[in-house]
Amino acid sequence: MTREENFMCEAVRIGVQGMRNNMGGPFGCIIVERDKIVGRGCNSVTSLNDPTAHAEMMAIRDACHKLGRTNLTGCELYTTCEPCPMCMGAIYWSKPDKVYFSNTRYDAKDAGFDDEFIYEQLELPINKRILAMQCVTVEEAKKMFEEWVANNKTLK
Amino acid sequence: MTREENFMCEAVRIGVQGMRNNMGGPFGCIIVERDKIVGRGCNSVTSLNDPTAHAEMMAIRDACHKLGRTNLTGCELYTTCEPCPMCMGAIYWSKPDKVYFSNTRYDAKDAGFDDEFIYEQLELPINKRILAMQCVTVEEAKKMFEEWVANNKTLK
Repeated sequence: MTREENFMCEAVRIGVQGMRNNMGGPFGCIIVERDKIVGRGCNSVTSLNDPTAHAEMMAIRDACHKLGRTNLTGCELYTTCEPCPMCMGAIYWSKPDKVYFSNTRYDAKDAGFDDEFIYEQLELPINKRILAMQCVTVEEAKKMFEEWVANNKTLK
Repeated sequence: MTREENFMCEAVRIGVQGMRNNMGGPFGCIIVERDKIVGRGCNSVTSLNDPTAHAEMMAIRDACHKLGRTNLTGCELYTTCEPCPMCMGAIYWSKPDKVYFSNTRYDAKDAGFDDEFIYEQLELPINKRILAMQCVTVEEAKKMFEEWVANNKTLK
């Protein structure tokens, strides 16, 4: 078994454990920094009443909390399934060096988890999406951005 | 001021408060159910060392926790800025009836927050993305899905 298969099996182990303990769906994820596991997560949507509690999100939050920083540069992320758009977004924000996945999004669809429609939705202009979205411009929101820029702040 | 502008100003108020208290960036969000605010969030990325702690994610988690369910059907989401792909993913999973935003993603770019590149990345096939992604198939991951399906479980 390769190094990567070994880490992937550990992610599966965490996913299976979560599934059997009724934490949520059959998904697990680990974050690895220099061959050490620094973050773990299993899907915990139903047990936490948290639709954002996908395995990848939980593992990213766990790793960043433990490492005391908001980015995962120098880390690898092992997830048992190709990430949904929400998790892909979180992955781009947290910047791990590489992502490994086992099951594909098409396998996920076969198991009853369809995130393909979200990928399709995000490619559409706002007025073509099934989700109703409306721009309500208030001057105060622009002023908030201006105050941020004037103070020369960043999120880095 | 319309009803929607009024709620949007409340989202801004929460964003400004978070920004001034060094919670994170200039973003606020509220969830409204039948004219009552049931969830609140401000960007808390830097204060929590959590790259997933965008205002929308915090508000969705807060609302679902308070309502004791994983979906926001019957609710409206007011966010001070057009959501990034991560937050859009979370919004599709949590299913609010409607989303209102004030600043656009282009305003966000001007203020130093560029999530346009994530939208562009998600439209590319995996092998064309700047993020290295690799499929490492392990049999155990497929078995986990099979166990889930065999037990006829759902995340609903």
